[in-house]
Amino acid sequence: MASEKQNKAIDLSHHLSDLSRRRQVSPLKGLAKYMGNPNLIALAGGMPHPSYFPFADVSASALVPDSFSLHPAQPEEESSLSWVWKLFGASTRKEKTTAITIPKYASDPMNDINLAVALQYGTAQGILPLQKFLQEFSSKIYQPGYEDFTTLVHTGNTDGWARIVLTLCNPGEMILTEEWTYPSALATCQPYGISPVPIAMDSEGMRADDLYKTLAEWDESARGAPRPHVLYTVPVGQNPSGATMGLKRKQEIYDVCVKFDVIIGEDDPYYFLQQGAYKPKSDRGSVTVKSSEEAYLHGLSPSYLKCDYQGRVIRLDTFSKYVAPGSRLGWFTCSPQIAERLERQGETTAQAPCGFGQSIVAQLLTTWKHEGYVRWLHGLAIEYQSRRDYFIDSLMEEFHVMQSVSNKSIWAGLDVYECSVKPTTMTEKASYKKIFTFTPPSSGMFLWLEMHFDSHPSFREGDEETLEMQLWTKIAEAGVLVAPGWFFAATDEINDAGKGHFRMSFSNAEFPTMKKAVKIFAQVVKEFYNEH
Amino acid sequence: MASEKQNKAIDLSHHLSDLSRRRQVSPLKGLAKYMGNPNLIALAGGMPHPSYFPFADVSASALVPDSFSLHPAQPEEESSLSWVWKLFGASTRKEKTTAITIPKYASDPMNDINLAVALQYGTAQGILPLQKFLQEFSSKIYQPGYEDFTTLVHTGNTDGWARIVLTLCNPGEMILTEEWTYPSALATCQPYGISPVPIAMDSEGMRADDLYKTLAEWDESARGAPRPHVLYTVPVGQNPSGATMGLKRKQEIYDVCVKFDVIIGEDDPYYFLQQGAYKPKSDRGSVTVKSSEEAYLHGLSPSYLKCDYQGRVIRLDTFSKYVAPGSRLGWFTCSPQIAERLERQGETTAQAPCGFGQSIVAQLLTTWKHEGYVRWLHGLAIEYQSRRDYFIDSLMEEFHVMQSVSNKSIWAGLDVYECSVKPTTMTEKASYKKIFTFTPPSSGMFLWLEMHFDSHPSFREGDEETLEMQLWTKIAEAGVLVAPGWFFAATDEINDAGKGHFRMSFSNAEFPTMKKAVKIFAQVVKEFYNEH
Repeated sequence: MASEKQNKAIDLSHHLSDLSRRRQVSPLKGLAKYMGNPNLIALAGGMPHPSYFPFADVSASALVPDSFSLHPAQPEEESSLSWVWKLFGASTRKEKTTAITIPKYASDPMNDINLAVALQYGTAQGILPLQKFLQEFSSKIYQPGYEDFTTLVHTGNTDGWARIVLTLCNPGEMILTEEWTYPSALATCQPYGISPVPIAMDSEGMRADDLYKTLAEWDESARGAPRPHVLYTVPVGQNPSGATMGLKRKQEIYDVCVKFDVIIGEDDPYYFLQQGAYKPKSDRGSVTVKSSEEAYLHGLSPSYLKCDYQGRVIRLDTFSKYVAPGSRLGWFTCSPQIAERLERQGETTAQAPCGFGQSIVAQLLTTWKHEGYVRWLHGLAIEYQSRRDYFIDSLMEEFHVMQSVSNKSIWAGLDVYECSVKPTTMTEKASYKKIFTFTPPSSGMFLWLEMHFDSHPSFREGDEETLEMQLWTKIAEAGVLVAPGWFFAATDEINDAGKGHFRMSFSNAEFPTMKKAVKIFAQVVKEFYNEH
Repeated sequence: MASEKQNKAIDLSHHLSDLSRRRQVSPLKGLAKYMGNPNLIALAGGMPHPSYFPFADVSASALVPDSFSLHPAQPEEESSLSWVWKLFGASTRKEKTTAITIPKYASDPMNDINLAVALQYGTAQGILPLQKFLQEFSSKIYQPGYEDFTTLVHTGNTDGWARIVLTLCNPGEMILTEEWTYPSALATCQPYGISPVPIAMDSEGMRADDLYKTLAEWDESARGAPRPHVLYTVPVGQNPSGATMGLKRKQEIYDVCVKFDVIIGEDDPYYFLQQGAYKPKSDRGSVTVKSSEEAYLHGLSPSYLKCDYQGRVIRLDTFSKYVAPGSRLGWFTCSPQIAERLERQGETTAQAPCGFGQSIVAQLLTTWKHEGYVRWLHGLAIEYQSRRDYFIDSLMEEFHVMQSVSNKSIWAGLDVYECSVKPTTMTEKASYKKIFTFTPPSSGMFLWLEMHFDSHPSFREGDEETLEMQLWTKIAEAGVLVAPGWFFAATDEINDAGKGHFRMSFSNAEFPTMKKAVKIFAQVVKEFYNEH
């Protein structure tokens, strides 16, 4: 279907919220054709003269695109140089940089990045060189299934998702989500009286069959809300489960969305952190083949955009994971009709993203060029692979681990690691008692542990959340902050009899600190399971 | 009252919108006390390691605080050097700069500005060094009438005002505004079904008597909305009228707001562009006394905060006019109770302002220090004074101007300039026909012209907006973009029999371009009034 490049635009009038409907097409009415015309002398807006911007230029020492090796660091390499700088922290490492500079003035002010334009009032579309880069990037990487898709900057995926909600949903409506999901996405909806309908998950994330069933059997009077027409999903390195969805499942979900006229909000911050399957240390072997950029891109699960022949996907991309969270910069890829509404929605809040951020990021990207940015992303993916591997290796050192292929629906077909306490003495009570289970993520930043609270000596039915918070507090008091599972439950009804969850991130801590954290975690958990 | 420094907090429960009420205190519930504790190993959030931020440092050539003279440029100085660089544009001028650099890592990461913190996920409160600067700045400059006021960053006053509206107003409510006001402030409210109640204005802006009358006589059933409890005002260099309000009027309005329990949203982007009274070129004299920073600050009309002994003022400050619009950075000054709600409101949209912008602006301000920033603001005020004077001088060269002291209520007591066509031949039909009237603004960026369409040969009652748009289009077609009056009317009912309006900005164009624009404007207007 993707190859047909059809362009049957969906009928947006079925989807716009009352809020979006009431927004003017443009607050400027008939004046728009004169606004921004560079041949007119502009006395209309309250724009300061650029000589009043207190900067002659802004510059940065930008890292080179190949700053990170494509050769994963392995525990065996503890004595190697690469290991040494990790041990002592990146802060002491000499980074290889190129100077980038954004001048105040440019001879071609629209096409060359300059402060006089980037720091002036601008449209919510952002500066042109950034727009161009993003349009080309989305086109090359995601290959949307229709021709006239467009890109539009936003100030991060949280802002992007908030704009989608307000553009498409009325108060009292419900949205479709994974049963475990990103809490901030729900916190955005909740005050507007927009609540989630959790869809069952498996090893690939959201299940198409449960989505179909939920929509087909929707009973408006029983539910107290019309059938949902907006779906929120994190399809890669799912937050919190770490699941990654392949193209086939995306196609199935897309087809359900076509049938029931649902718009897909694809929140995909971890897309480029696809790391391949985890292999236990013993199976890894010491030689790693350095892969090419083409192989890297080819190995990435395609975006929902690739299935999208109707313009019903709104993809959210962010620079938070690849440049920096503080850049507060990302972009939508969607149909121009939806982009127009999202742009209006943004005009009365944050307006355009920060001009310092836009110009610095645009200068970085245009200096690196498309290929350089892909190389940077590839390097990061390998970094996260090393981090994931090291984190799981550390966990496996602390527990007795049984590896199997799961037949439980949520992890069907995947490698599952069942962890129990390593017996140290014959008298240890909890020996080989199942403590937690996980499946190694193939993308993203998170390890999602299913805790077997039913193995806890004092467990009684219904105690899951109490035990989860008791254990969470003990871990925190011992010096490690993990994320408790309840935080990610789409609704209070989501639970797993006898189980609890923790989400652990391997994205931020130094390697020795990760090991220390895992040791502390193991110590606290073992003590907890030994309680009477 | 201000000196009493009482702290009777208003009862916010009367004011919070349903939206804000439904927002959780914090999405983290009981976890908050552990979050952000630097002694814990953080595996909870999805924070990238700072070594993955592709910058070793960011730097800028910052202008020095005394870049702009305190001696206003005068038309007499056309041959002086200062005039020459203005003529050829600031872009060719050599700016005097100091290098500022933001390193990636700092030894005291919370107190010293660094990219590792500024570009990481952070709270909606922004980076600490910026918070500290702003708290001190608001304290010293605005001297709020109660002790425990606080400051909170936002991404520009448009975002700030949007957060105020959503925090305080339910759909269907009405807000109090000046009868001519900033259209974007209304565009924010309008889709939520929140509409303005226009309050009459005079030479100082909003009138306290009309505000009192409106509130005292409020008839909920006739109006279809409860009595408003939120007031939006631009008290200095009012947009579009240019009016500036003194402390006495602010005190009167504040007292009315106390009586009727109204919260004041003080949107004050032009505060530091207070320029003093305009004097015609002939009265100006060639010697200008260079004033001190103390005299400059002392001459500024106090903020509503100075009257605020109850914490019912939410002041909006922005860097858009003093650093750059593209910084998308400003701050609230208000009570901590309100700030907490505004912070929650921001967390699910733009979150924190951009870390590039925060760190660059914070580095600039802490390099300049409080005194340096005040010197910069003072220099800008003088620049805008020169711009205003030059613009009005140019206008006066093109028209026959009669100066008088107004007795019309809106401009009572102010100098009013009535402009008519200079007769060039005895046969010119429109000679001395009153074309427009204005009062020179003492602050801000705008000149607000009242057009006498009743002097137009083809005028018929009710034609005001038609003639305004006809003339606006002719001016645009001739190459000058001004802002048409209808754009700023709070409601469709606002009009002035026989009159129209144009807002002209003197903030952006080069000096010779301003003169050219005024000539084109004069030419088109004269032709327009000579039509049959």
